[in-house]
Amino acid sequence: MTRERLFLYDTTLRDGQQTQGVSFSTPEKIRISRALDQLGIDYIEGGWPGANPTDSAFFDAAPPTRATMTAFGMTKRTGRSAENDDVLAAVLNAGTNAVCIVGKTHDFHVETALGITLDENTENIAQSIAHITAQEREAIFDAEHFFDGYRANPAYALDAIRAAHDAGARWIVLCDTNGGALPTEIGRITSEVIAAGIPGERLGIHTHNDTESAVAGALAAVDAGARQVQGTLNGLGERCGNANLTTLIPTLLLKEPYAGRFETGITRDALAGLTQISRQLDDILNRIPMRQAPYVGASAFAHKAGLHASAILKDPATYEHIDPALVGNARVIPMSNQAGQSNLRRRLAEAGLEVARDDPALPRILERIKEREDQGYTYDSAQASFELLARDELGLLPAFFEVKRYKVTVERRKNKYDRMVSLSEAVVVVKVDGEKKLSVSESMDESGSDRGPVNALAKALAKDLGRYQGAVEDMHLVDFKVRITQGGTEAVTRVIIDSEDRQGRRWSTVGVSANIVDASFDALLDAINWKLVREGDAAQAQPA
Amino acid sequence: MTRERLFLYDTTLRDGQQTQGVSFSTPEKIRISRALDQLGIDYIEGGWPGANPTDSAFFDAAPPTRATMTAFGMTKRTGRSAENDDVLAAVLNAGTNAVCIVGKTHDFHVETALGITLDENTENIAQSIAHITAQEREAIFDAEHFFDGYRANPAYALDAIRAAHDAGARWIVLCDTNGGALPTEIGRITSEVIAAGIPGERLGIHTHNDTESAVAGALAAVDAGARQVQGTLNGLGERCGNANLTTLIPTLLLKEPYAGRFETGITRDALAGLTQISRQLDDILNRIPMRQAPYVGASAFAHKAGLHASAILKDPATYEHIDPALVGNARVIPMSNQAGQSNLRRRLAEAGLEVARDDPALPRILERIKEREDQGYTYDSAQASFELLARDELGLLPAFFEVKRYKVTVERRKNKYDRMVSLSEAVVVVKVDGEKKLSVSESMDESGSDRGPVNALAKALAKDLGRYQGAVEDMHLVDFKVRITQGGTEAVTRVIIDSEDRQGRRWSTVGVSANIVDASFDALLDAINWKLVREGDAAQAQPA
Repeated sequence: MTRERLFLYDTTLRDGQQTQGVSFSTPEKIRISRALDQLGIDYIEGGWPGANPTDSAFFDAAPPTRATMTAFGMTKRTGRSAENDDVLAAVLNAGTNAVCIVGKTHDFHVETALGITLDENTENIAQSIAHITAQEREAIFDAEHFFDGYRANPAYALDAIRAAHDAGARWIVLCDTNGGALPTEIGRITSEVIAAGIPGERLGIHTHNDTESAVAGALAAVDAGARQVQGTLNGLGERCGNANLTTLIPTLLLKEPYAGRFETGITRDALAGLTQISRQLDDILNRIPMRQAPYVGASAFAHKAGLHASAILKDPATYEHIDPALVGNARVIPMSNQAGQSNLRRRLAEAGLEVARDDPALPRILERIKEREDQGYTYDSAQASFELLARDELGLLPAFFEVKRYKVTVERRKNKYDRMVSLSEAVVVVKVDGEKKLSVSESMDESGSDRGPVNALAKALAKDLGRYQGAVEDMHLVDFKVRITQGGTEAVTRVIIDSEDRQGRRWSTVGVSANIVDASFDALLDAINWKLVREGDAAQAQPA
Repeated sequence: MTRERLFLYDTTLRDGQQTQGVSFSTPEKIRISRALDQLGIDYIEGGWPGANPTDSAFFDAAPPTRATMTAFGMTKRTGRSAENDDVLAAVLNAGTNAVCIVGKTHDFHVETALGITLDENTENIAQSIAHITAQEREAIFDAEHFFDGYRANPAYALDAIRAAHDAGARWIVLCDTNGGALPTEIGRITSEVIAAGIPGERLGIHTHNDTESAVAGALAAVDAGARQVQGTLNGLGERCGNANLTTLIPTLLLKEPYAGRFETGITRDALAGLTQISRQLDDILNRIPMRQAPYVGASAFAHKAGLHASAILKDPATYEHIDPALVGNARVIPMSNQAGQSNLRRRLAEAGLEVARDDPALPRILERIKEREDQGYTYDSAQASFELLARDELGLLPAFFEVKRYKVTVERRKNKYDRMVSLSEAVVVVKVDGEKKLSVSESMDESGSDRGPVNALAKALAKDLGRYQGAVEDMHLVDFKVRITQGGTEAVTRVIIDSEDRQGRRWSTVGVSANIVDASFDALLDAINWKLVREGDAAQAQPA
């Protein structure tokens, strides 16, 4: 069976940049285009040269790619020739192999937003496309508001795209610019366009997520025959975002009725790098990755329900629609008050604790987890605290050291320059091997900024732990999350701390108290104890 | 034209609780069920009574609702009668008007996960449903993995749901439990089920978002004839989440081909509260609202592209698929242009500050908001702090008092009974009318529990403010939210405090600092200053 070619067109660097709060630098655009090329995308839309300095600089510096680099712009304006339109000239001057220009196909927009006649608009489209192909570039036409336009005036919408088609556009992309068209309508109209004589091999689809249907809308157009799909990584884009390529790609490659049907530029190996590429983009943008993201999210293969978790242990196919490894993701079985014992044993095994099915500690551990969750603790996202609790119940937690007391002071007052400054100071008293040790630290960092009381406390706690000191020296706090929650009938503070060490280990611990400093202290204490458990020789501790 | 009735079924409190990191307390479940009822949802699935203490406690305390409160459980197990199944009994004991039980319809699951025969499973379904209806409850059957089951063995999948149907289930809900079925397949199979004799008026649809198509899948089932739609607020749920009711509701009420076609329990007025309900849920969960969320997200009607923003000023219909006010959301146009300033004037007017269109303070206020937002502040949810900032720029903020310094101590040590206890103490020094006043408070509440350093600080700050004391006596802190966010290049703590007074006023203030106590102090200070602005006679303050 010969497979049809399906083309993937990425607009992360152009429409993705319309996301509120997102603006790429030129080096960031270069990094992203390298990642897209590695993934095997066919077209990379790099930006609008001439519209802003970053986009122009990117095309000057763009790395060589296997993908077709594409510059974006708009059709020439009325009253001048394509040759004399400076906006269009700037787009062509970027020197890309392909040029995509957006134009109107909705009569209301031609008349309201542009204020020109319908014929003038059709003429602008035809001449602009002809001008691009005359320069031996591949011409792509983004038919703005196509579905709204077709609904309002199908004859004119078809005229407009036929103008682009007849002038030699390689692709006519049906754009649902407002994001308001539902998949059924997108499918029906795409079929009608093909029936009207524009072949599916020259049709693309560009959808937005304003009804949470961008992915389904793109698939509906593919079902109807369109053979180019536009989207962005992680669904970035104007308003609610564009069709999410991070979802569309695995669906088109792995799921029925698409699996094996199309030839694309994406290999199985590249697909297995998808999760990493998604996280890399978040990293560049300094955004917290969406846990619930399909295929690539940290929760995408997390099985929280007790019934699900126990079935997964028998056969992963029971509750997984694809094997997470195919997209470079992994299965997660979190702890929660929904969890059954099999889930618990699985989690313990992951922490290196093999516990027999009938071990009497199992119900005790579950009981303690339930109790603590009622107090406001959560162990889904605090795996290290979960392990310590289980070890304690199993008699596998040495008492490395004992905290006798601590005291933290936070002060704000005027300094000698009459400016208000804050400073925190922490004193921690621990007993290690029978010896009492007092440590004091303050919250000032190297730059002289106050980092707050929890920072001072963390430093004091890890300052002198006797023979364990070596084991904790290389750990540091990388994230700190606070939430006010319900513990019994009172509001309490839950603190989750992420720590890291030089060996690249990363672990999360939790503390709960009405007092935020106290909650933080308990999470810090768990972080240190977990690290000491992990350090082999340090584990020769004093008896509990 | 008579409109068909479409039923909305919410499972935020049950499947939504399967979201990683989410676990509701009983009071939170009560708040959410009130919000769902206000919205006009038909069924509220409250949880699984007997499976965990929170769910059992919720049904004991559940508020009266117009919506049908529904308890969730599973079909009876093999080898005992429905009457003698303790798990099923616990579900019925919750005393709800409707009971939803999940059962297998996929032969692979019956044999692999349950390890029973296909006939035993069908029998379990029939007897469980009959047992529920015999108690005069409305029986709902969640057909787990229905689409996978139908794909593998259509005859058995139909047998299984026919058993529920014939035993008197009001609803048979086709569940895409793994989230792997695409909308086209969901539509086709739903049609085939109806053709096989199960009427659409008794069919529901339950989809998951693992291919980012949960909403489109639910719509495909409605197109085919299903008349109950299950989902969750904000798309919470196992793995990638459930079908998002926050999206489905406006689509079903406002968009073609659905608008006006169905009768639902949701009024236009309730729909206009949708954005608020979505934010309220995030607030309860202390999750950052998703800006890109369809309909209700802060970016859903934000027009960043220059072309779009200028067309929007001519006619909003050019780039908006619905009027944002219909769902209680608002258009956002970048602050930099004219529209940004009119937006600001509207917000100032809401705070009782009428400012002329050409007031030179307007661009200064916008500039300061932008600067502070870069530092990590947010004024969306801290209206009182926004008003104070604006008043300051407008010269309308009296300097009521001056804070000279403060000091907070947090200590944990052994008490005389050799138990570890914590205590915080705060000293605040203010200057009022030229007079210096020292106040000290501790964190112990009436019951002898430590309420933490912020509590001590709040009490000390409001303890002696001279002639302003009368004005602040009746205010108290009702909520306290903490979030770690980005301020420039550093992680900082953002604290939002909600205060209330005896006249029923409620206001929110924000503080940001690397030091959590400092951030809290600034939010407390804003809370007091806002209250003093509101108290007429107190406003005769000393000059700035």
